[in-house]
Amino acid sequence: MAKPIGIFDSGLGGLTVARAISGAFPAENLVYLGDTARVPYGTRSAGTVVKYAIACAERLLSFDIKLLVVACNTASGVALAELQARLDIPVVGVIQPGARAGIKATRTGRIGILATAGTVASGAYERAIHSESEAMKVFARAAPLFVPLAEEGWVTGEVPELAARRYLQPLADVDVDTIVLGCTHYPLLSETIHRAAAELLGHDVAIVDSAAATAATLSTMLAGSSIAAGPPGSLQILVTDLPGQFGSAASRFLGKPVDGLDIHAIDL
Amino acid sequence: MAKPIGIFDSGLGGLTVARAISGAFPAENLVYLGDTARVPYGTRSAGTVVKYAIACAERLLSFDIKLLVVACNTASGVALAELQARLDIPVVGVIQPGARAGIKATRTGRIGILATAGTVASGAYERAIHSESEAMKVFARAAPLFVPLAEEGWVTGEVPELAARRYLQPLADVDVDTIVLGCTHYPLLSETIHRAAAELLGHDVAIVDSAAATAATLSTMLAGSSIAAGPPGSLQILVTDLPGQFGSAASRFLGKPVDGLDIHAIDL
Repeated sequence: MAKPIGIFDSGLGGLTVARAISGAFPAENLVYLGDTARVPYGTRSAGTVVKYAIACAERLLSFDIKLLVVACNTASGVALAELQARLDIPVVGVIQPGARAGIKATRTGRIGILATAGTVASGAYERAIHSESEAMKVFARAAPLFVPLAEEGWVTGEVPELAARRYLQPLADVDVDTIVLGCTHYPLLSETIHRAAAELLGHDVAIVDSAAATAATLSTMLAGSSIAAGPPGSLQILVTDLPGQFGSAASRFLGKPVDGLDIHAIDL
Repeated sequence: MAKPIGIFDSGLGGLTVARAISGAFPAENLVYLGDTARVPYGTRSAGTVVKYAIACAERLLSFDIKLLVVACNTASGVALAELQARLDIPVVGVIQPGARAGIKATRTGRIGILATAGTVASGAYERAIHSESEAMKVFARAAPLFVPLAEEGWVTGEVPELAARRYLQPLADVDVDTIVLGCTHYPLLSETIHRAAAELLGHDVAIVDSAAATAATLSTMLAGSSIAAGPPGSLQILVTDLPGQFGSAASRFLGKPVDGLDIHAIDL
């Protein structure tokens, strides 16, 4: 059997990345680890997140993965270099792909980032964008309420619209033309974010989804010969805690029912 | 020195309980443990919460505490009996005091509970209320967005008001006259909750704060002679992670600046 691709996230949000990878490479086998017992990472210190990321990576290595995707923006921001130094396989985060897609999308060179407080504080998107193109102006804002809104399923309507407007106003004030969704939960709110941004700015805004951008990156990471071909691959899900509302939340992020999926609760 | 009172919570919300205890018993020394590395407990399984609660209690026992307050509704709901069985000192949760205060406040016998999904699923408030008074009608609803709203400091204004109305509508539909705030974060939103409830119901509603109710209970738990007297007691804060925004969040819950407080990061 072809070696699987390993993916981890602090929780279930990274299933949006698994979904994008599965869509782009349908024959690949995926092993997804959601550290649901310790979610969220976004409010924790860098040292704690690095420790958790190493534990997740080590568990996935036991599945003989050929590539590791860090599908968590917070962990990508603070732990990617450490993981790349420790592991013998390619390790890809969601920030560099999101940053590149943002640069590609912008016409004015003014890019907004919406992310968790932890990702914003890490400055990871600014660094990633400036490492590619120094001239870009980057404006990052925390939008912490988007995570519980996505998990609640409150993705359209008054409350998410008001929250979106409140978070987007500072980005509208500096006249960005592109907004990178720097948290795997946020794509569920992308329609509301898109509409609020266009209203506040008075013109259309490109919304960049890091999950899709990361999936697109994998084709260059995997040598042509190592991309699996054939029948649809499997998706195995490991979680460190199995909360009551697991099914509904997971299927929201995955975009399909989780019934019949291969799901195991593990200890880390 | 008098033995301290130990208090733990999944995070910083329990500081509202520490504040209430300190107000009622100013000479007591308090040791507060906030498990900020593993917050929130409300979305985790019962087994995981019991494991975490035991770890917190064991750490506090090393301070030779005379009484343990479980200032976390989720842990009170699923781990109190286990802690009481294991420990030789009195252990008090926030649910029984909140339940009793709700019974005392209601005139119609129709009590609403607002809490995290975990606390609601545990059925702990229903059990606590019915163990005192079988005739009471109890209606519990999860209000998960209140936690990030309190942490963001969005406690008044449009977004919390809309969220409050959405969460309170089912309680208004069943015509409660009393609402118990079954999560230590919610007292920060009590003004907004009070107003929204009164508007939806068309009459005033009693809002019961479990933190204040728990502090009031301690006088009966501590024998008269073991209540500390004398100069103001100390407050020592232990946290399992020290996030960047610790100061502003902690002072919001504590109701005063945290500068000059005795704060240590520990591993559990």
